[in-house]
Amino acid sequence: MPNPILFEVTRGPLVESAHRGAVAVANARGEILFSLGDVETPVYSRSSLKPIQALPLVESGAAEAFDLSDEEIALACASHSGEPMHTSRVAKWLKRIGCSEADLACGPHPLRHEATVLAMHDKGETPTRLHNNCSGKHTGFLTLAKHLGVPTAGYERADHPVQRAVAAALKDLTGLTGDLPTGIDGCAAPNFATPVAALARALARFADPSGLPPKRAAAMTRLVNAMIAHPDLVAGTGRSDTVMMRDAKGRAATKAGAEGFYIAVLPHDGLAIALKIDDGAGRAAEGAMAAVLLRYGAVPKGSETERLAHGPVKNTRDTVVGEHRPSAALLA
Amino acid sequence: MPNPILFEVTRGPLVESAHRGAVAVANARGEILFSLGDVETPVYSRSSLKPIQALPLVESGAAEAFDLSDEEIALACASHSGEPMHTSRVAKWLKRIGCSEADLACGPHPLRHEATVLAMHDKGETPTRLHNNCSGKHTGFLTLAKHLGVPTAGYERADHPVQRAVAAALKDLTGLTGDLPTGIDGCAAPNFATPVAALARALARFADPSGLPPKRAAAMTRLVNAMIAHPDLVAGTGRSDTVMMRDAKGRAATKAGAEGFYIAVLPHDGLAIALKIDDGAGRAAEGAMAAVLLRYGAVPKGSETERLAHGPVKNTRDTVVGEHRPSAALLA
Repeated sequence: MPNPILFEVTRGPLVESAHRGAVAVANARGEILFSLGDVETPVYSRSSLKPIQALPLVESGAAEAFDLSDEEIALACASHSGEPMHTSRVAKWLKRIGCSEADLACGPHPLRHEATVLAMHDKGETPTRLHNNCSGKHTGFLTLAKHLGVPTAGYERADHPVQRAVAAALKDLTGLTGDLPTGIDGCAAPNFATPVAALARALARFADPSGLPPKRAAAMTRLVNAMIAHPDLVAGTGRSDTVMMRDAKGRAATKAGAEGFYIAVLPHDGLAIALKIDDGAGRAAEGAMAAVLLRYGAVPKGSETERLAHGPVKNTRDTVVGEHRPSAALLA
Repeated sequence: MPNPILFEVTRGPLVESAHRGAVAVANARGEILFSLGDVETPVYSRSSLKPIQALPLVESGAAEAFDLSDEEIALACASHSGEPMHTSRVAKWLKRIGCSEADLACGPHPLRHEATVLAMHDKGETPTRLHNNCSGKHTGFLTLAKHLGVPTAGYERADHPVQRAVAAALKDLTGLTGDLPTGIDGCAAPNFATPVAALARALARFADPSGLPPKRAAAMTRLVNAMIAHPDLVAGTGRSDTVMMRDAKGRAATKAGAEGFYIAVLPHDGLAIALKIDDGAGRAAEGAMAAVLLRYGAVPKGSETERLAHGPVKNTRDTVVGEHRPSAALLA
């Protein structure tokens, strides 16, 4: 049974392209308040997993021991654009923990942010590991390794204490047992697959950590607040997470993942949202998430986020030739 | 009934993303030799329509009257990358017909080819309408308008003689009657929706024009031969059409369209292929087309085209973390 269509793109009188997927909204009691599609088959959440990947960093006391700022915590949860505001902060943080770019296990990769690409070209610079969108997450991993007193080398391997701590936190929060299906992410770190519903339940604890052990609850609150306080560091100029968190004004921490994953934590509502677009399209994941955020009143009507959900398709002459919009199923 | 999965992307032990779609292979007698999915609902073929959009240019005698080279005919069928080899030829062609960039109805748009982007940045240049990937198609439209002795202004409107000639050729070849559903393309020209099967049948006449009126048959042969002779002009450095046509060594003329459309004309086999990926993903359209070309022996095993069909997914450390591959349904 294929998943329902969540998002579509029209041109003239026809729907030109359509995106299927699954979405779940959960509360901290583990109740699924809304869902569409198959939310029980494990899928990779990719960078949407970052708030959970950063949980051991804060919960262990490493963040406190190394005096991490909220900006650094936000970068630990980021898929940043490699703009100077991102790379300069990651470089300083690395230095403070006695590490350098060479310790990062993520490879360099082309930047998304055109102005930075051109500025680097002008200076004859090429992308480094600092520019990898995951360099903050990796610096968080290194910080945890230092705090645990274990070797930093190999921190990206699934059997390293850092990654074992991530897997343990994820299993603990989801209630999943045994080995989770594991892939290697673009940045070389393991990515653990979970059902969409299970991830929504786990993230709902970030929205409402009441009843959890105080250290864990405090760590979750700090992570969510750091993301909400620094939308520009979690993503970058013009990016969807930056747009959504600015529009939400404290009502949502959001995190995109590659291949059409998206999550949001709604602390005022005690809810979390997780969704996966089957075909991996970012435009549909952004648009569907924007629609669900609107549904729960986490972003205002008329905001830029609403345009991610429902807006015009324009051609090179700036003529409106169609629209992108949530499906009837998602709006029902 | 959703279309079947045609292409998928794995990571570790799981299929991470999957692309549904429809594909049809037809011969010049109008027989469908192979199909998957719904090939009877109209969809936009976008730039895959270009060989048919260029048919009136050649069939009318305009190409001969203006002494168009095979390079120019290839550019009329192109979605080029805006590299100097493309823009310089379009500029010369425009001048020869007494037109200029200002006559092009397509807007400027960002280039795909990074080396050209950086070279233009160095010279302080910004994209012009010549850089629009459709500038060759539009110059073909202008050439036809000149030849018909009608005003060039407004040549992109559906009621202009140029666009009426395109619609007439398409209806004639597909056997479709009445008004075709019409959208406006990225370049401002109308794009006419047809069923995938109908477009495959129409294009099969390009592969085997025997029995057609001599002028039409000769025009079709010239268009296919011009595309095959100039794979670099039809797309650009590193692009899938360029790769496929080089690998096919005369056995296929291929043309990608936006939003997951792809067509191929196989003159040695008297066949044509048309496919649409439901979600609009180019990676899946390229990969599925590559798989069908392999199936018909139009490209050799071990070629770069085979890697488009079935190849590794690598991360930023150049580690193989998954693969992209045709679905079991497409290979069956």
